[in-house]
Amino acid sequence: MRLSIIGVGLIGGSLGRALVRNGHDVSGFDANEERLQSAVARGFVSRAASSLADAAAGHDIVFVGVPVSSVPTVVIEALDAGAAVVTDVGSVKASVVEAVERARPETAPRFVGGHPMAGSEQEGLDGADPDLFEGATWVLTPTATTDPTAFTAVQGVVRSLGAEVVAVHPTDHDALVATVSHVPHLAAGTLMLLASEQAGSADRGPLLRLAAGGFRDMTRIAAGHPGIWPDICVENRDAIVRALDEYVRALVEIRDRVAGEDRDGLLASLERARDARTNLPIAGLEEGPFAELRIPVPDRPGVLAEVTTLAGQIGVNIVDLEIAHSSEGPEGVLVLIVPMRGVEQFEGALDAAGYRASRRTIA
Amino acid sequence: MRLSIIGVGLIGGSLGRALVRNGHDVSGFDANEERLQSAVARGFVSRAASSLADAAAGHDIVFVGVPVSSVPTVVIEALDAGAAVVTDVGSVKASVVEAVERARPETAPRFVGGHPMAGSEQEGLDGADPDLFEGATWVLTPTATTDPTAFTAVQGVVRSLGAEVVAVHPTDHDALVATVSHVPHLAAGTLMLLASEQAGSADRGPLLRLAAGGFRDMTRIAAGHPGIWPDICVENRDAIVRALDEYVRALVEIRDRVAGEDRDGLLASLERARDARTNLPIAGLEEGPFAELRIPVPDRPGVLAEVTTLAGQIGVNIVDLEIAHSSEGPEGVLVLIVPMRGVEQFEGALDAAGYRASRRTIA
Repeated sequence: MRLSIIGVGLIGGSLGRALVRNGHDVSGFDANEERLQSAVARGFVSRAASSLADAAAGHDIVFVGVPVSSVPTVVIEALDAGAAVVTDVGSVKASVVEAVERARPETAPRFVGGHPMAGSEQEGLDGADPDLFEGATWVLTPTATTDPTAFTAVQGVVRSLGAEVVAVHPTDHDALVATVSHVPHLAAGTLMLLASEQAGSADRGPLLRLAAGGFRDMTRIAAGHPGIWPDICVENRDAIVRALDEYVRALVEIRDRVAGEDRDGLLASLERARDARTNLPIAGLEEGPFAELRIPVPDRPGVLAEVTTLAGQIGVNIVDLEIAHSSEGPEGVLVLIVPMRGVEQFEGALDAAGYRASRRTIA
Repeated sequence: MRLSIIGVGLIGGSLGRALVRNGHDVSGFDANEERLQSAVARGFVSRAASSLADAAAGHDIVFVGVPVSSVPTVVIEALDAGAAVVTDVGSVKASVVEAVERARPETAPRFVGGHPMAGSEQEGLDGADPDLFEGATWVLTPTATTDPTAFTAVQGVVRSLGAEVVAVHPTDHDALVATVSHVPHLAAGTLMLLASEQAGSADRGPLLRLAAGGFRDMTRIAAGHPGIWPDICVENRDAIVRALDEYVRALVEIRDRVAGEDRDGLLASLERARDARTNLPIAGLEEGPFAELRIPVPDRPGVLAEVTTLAGQIGVNIVDLEIAHSSEGPEGVLVLIVPMRGVEQFEGALDAAGYRASRRTIA
């Protein structure tokens, strides 16, 4: 199969490394000539294409890894240049898919929208990692007109990278990422600003010390790079506005329950929320069921090392880990998510080391 | 000094253990006779008082550790019985302070409202921990009529437990905990329900796999015990309603910016939010400044142990730790908060072990 990648940034570069490692012949193209040459020199792609058209013509699958606002243009050029199948890796899908279908109704069936739910702290080619997609969910967004052969071709390559393919309608995808990614980011930032304004100026700043673990958790994403968000908000505008409207409506409902001292209604809502949160599926390579272990730990050096070393020694992969400052204080509770297999051996080792873990099975 | 504790649950029991350890003579009383006897048998208090009045009369400071809805009644009974100074440990303050001042204008100056920002995973007497307050923030809420001698007495004992005293007006306290604790809990639960409703029934449930680290962080507190929240919402009703109204107003503003594609406005808000989050003070024993180290880590057993063992070996106390699934995938980034002193030695050790950490100084 002749594959190519247009746009060799973090995702494109990671994709190139993974495909080359799997023995594929991969052409690369990037509007930034320097970056393209670097990708070739480092062996992330097999060769540099001389133009976008050169990277598309005669290729079986073209992966488009350019910023989301440029995706439609590049996809259309690739289709026009004769690529057999084109897919992209942008984080917003409906506007892209619609733009391609509107501009090229005849060839659009050979385009399959895609969004690998994978990323990295690193940015650009330096962060390219051939293992980035292992265990990741990779959304593909076929529509009624998508050619099934094109879909199957993309799906096959994506699966060969260790990713799990989930097919979702473009608008469903956008609505869902608005709710689980975009709105949470905006909501966290808004909450952080509110608290900071309320605590007031520098001399009252220490009042934010009253903000404990839960608040830290809720606002953590607000510390992320702000630069990417204006683009995302514009590209996924309609879905984000709808999700924010829904969120506001639901918050007003809760507000009215508090104002009306509706204890039963509040309890019922929070119980449903707790059940939903407990059953939130865990992404990643490990297969469930998982166990959540909560271990009260003193706040001193070495405790984390002791607990995680015990896990490492018996081969238990810690899927997730946090220090929960459980209600309001500095006292720590170590919360570990581990696969169920091996959990009893791990608990035995913890017990022998003097740690009292409580366990809960999660989905 | 003759001290006493009325209500020997988690906080009361922890307080008793800490005071007894410090050499104080501590009377205890609890409406639950069995619990009281258990506290005495375990040495958490020095003796059982025969009645609430017996636990109050002739005592220099009475700590009231009963559920927040019962605090005013118990405080008033303790004042009436002749306690020199009375303080409480409830999580809502304005309603309590007002109730006492209204009912007993003459003796209310000897009551000092309090709220230790400390808690534990454990519940009840079994979770009582004499170290619970070390490094914790303990809010005291004196008013214009509070007797300075009473305030100083409570402050002295609280400081002797290793807690830091912050004096805040009762209504300011309630407004602040509404924003940094109560509203975040309600907002997290609401977001979780929204996502879960949108992902729909069981067959579409796997769509929540699109929910990555940020969403998990934001909704984590929604997994907590729902049972305590109806009471908190009723007791702090006004402050919670005001904070929710503010939050909704701010979200609508953000919504309008998204709808209007106001890139500059969005960026400015998110940048201010990031700055505020980055400067969020860290509770706990360690003194700042702190460094945040971000270390990309492969998803395999043993990595956590290796990193945390290195920290333990050179005596670096990890103040906070999380695995951030940075943007959307299973790839992990280990985020450690450590005190600045020793950070370079730690980075050297990490580097020698092949981990590439990036550092950021935080307040």
